[in-house]
Amino acid sequence: MTRSIGRFVWVIAEGYIPAESHGPPGPMTSHETACLLNTGEAPAHVRITIFYADREPTPPYEVVVPPRRTLHLRFNDLSDPAPIRRDTDYSSVIESDVPIVVQHTRLDTRQAAEALLSTVAYSQ
Amino acid sequence: MTRSIGRFVWVIAEGYIPAESHGPPGPMTSHETACLLNTGEAPAHVRITIFYADREPTPPYEVVVPPRRTLHLRFNDLSDPAPIRRDTDYSSVIESDVPIVVQHTRLDTRQAAEALLSTVAYSQ
Amino acid sequence: MTRSIGRFVWVIAEGYIPAESHGPPGPMTSHETACLLNTGEAPAHVRITIFYADREPTPPYEVVVPPRRTLHLRFNDLSDPAPIRRDTDYSSVIESDVPIVVQHTRLDTRQAAEALLSTVAYSQ
Amino acid sequence: MTRSIGRFVWVIAEGYIPAESHGPPGPMTSHETACLLNTGEAPAHVRITIFYADREPTPPYEVVVPPRRTLHLRFNDLSDPAPIRRDTDYSSVIESDVPIVVQHTRLDTRQAAEALLSTVAYSQ
Repeated sequence: MTRSIGRFVWVIAEGYIPAESHGPPGPMTSHETACLLNTGEAPAHVRITIFYADREPTPPYEVVVPPRRTLHLRFNDLSDPAPIRRDTDYSSVIESDVPIVVQHTRLDTRQAAEALLSTVAYSQ
Repeated sequence: MTRSIGRFVWVIAEGYIPAESHGPPGPMTSHETACLLNTGEAPAHVRITIFYADREPTPPYEVVVPPRRTLHLRFNDLSDPAPIRRDTDYSSVIESDVPIVVQHTRLDTRQAAEALLSTVAYSQ
Repeated sequence: MTRSIGRFVWVIAEGYIPAESHGPPGPMTSHETACLLNTGEAPAHVRITIFYADREPTPPYEVVVPPRRTLHLRFNDLSDPAPIRRDTDYSSVIESDVPIVVQHTRLDTRQAAEALLSTVAYSQ
Repeated sequence: MTRSIGRFVWVIAEGYIPAESHGPPGPMTSHETACLLNTGEAPAHVRITIFYADREPTPPYEVVVPPRRTLHLRFNDLSDPAPIRRDTDYSSVIESDVPIVVQHTRLDTRQAAEALLSTVAYSQ
């Protein structure tokens, strides 16, 4: 498995990190994740731009996915240039210099039992 | 990030707004949402047509997504020409004059703990 | 909106109708649904073939989606040639004589609070 | 229905098998599944490679989907060359020698009421 699989540009139009959680902090904290898979032989330099409803998009957050590795990136953990606001609608555009595959998930524990959603992101 | 990303025509075949909810009104009210992202430099003029099981489709609802903005549009909030009936099966066709990306979600709180679903809409 | 939108062949690889439910029968009965949208001017004659893990596929179930209508078809309700077995893995292939769009959902109430999943089906 | 439908290469970027569960073991054990449909007349020889965040991908797991059959394969059950680690981020690449369709699901019962997610996998 040394082939590159995927696309260079991905979009997750849904985005919302609930401020509230139930259950053990960490695994059961409400969060949104972009699961990034790099099947290739070169590192993937990934830039994530956040779009909001009421202000200009952020400068891109930058992460690296090493060759032949997955990175399940919690949007909760992005901090530079600034954390993503909680309880706020957003969207994300994810751009890579090598092909990757992106899948989106939310774990939501605002109420007493968890809820999950997931979809492969939109690519072009 | 000044490029236009996406498609002009999107379809969400699932549609159902539960009349019942548990939890704080507003965030935890059962709702369906179309998350619309406009990454481009021109406003997106969006027309949403609702299809039902037993009567003719509605005239289009119209919304605008400003340049470089996301709009998480609750179907619950559509009111002109008429609100979408609760507890009723529907589908939606979403057309834009510039490329956009559309993702569909439902938050369902009919029972004591929330449920979520999401998928990128169908595009062509 | 008189155009035909969609594809002729759709696949839902996941299929599983739980035998157990909690909550009011009907809306909260555990079920799987294929949401079928026909945006065109001609009726859609739809054939649904069910594939199992351990026996031959069924002869096709047949339904009609009228022009400009949606049909949220519960797999639970299919009866001719035979009901789909509960608590049993299956897949479905959905073929139409005019373009349609298909989205898959499950409402699962085996435990005390509901769970949901959804995805646009695979098309080709 | 003797045609082959689908693609040869599929990717599920999300992967996470919770170690914890509530409810009857078996059906309600937290699990992730790849639903594999082979509509064709020849058996599908399928190879599944698991990618991790912090070590090399596994050698491929091998399964066969008979002609005209579905296989809802629980990642929990993969054992050769080694079980997938619980509470651990992974991704999977699924390759077949004939066209198949792949849909991904998780049933998550870490909390008192189940959660579900599903999406058609990424194909190319």
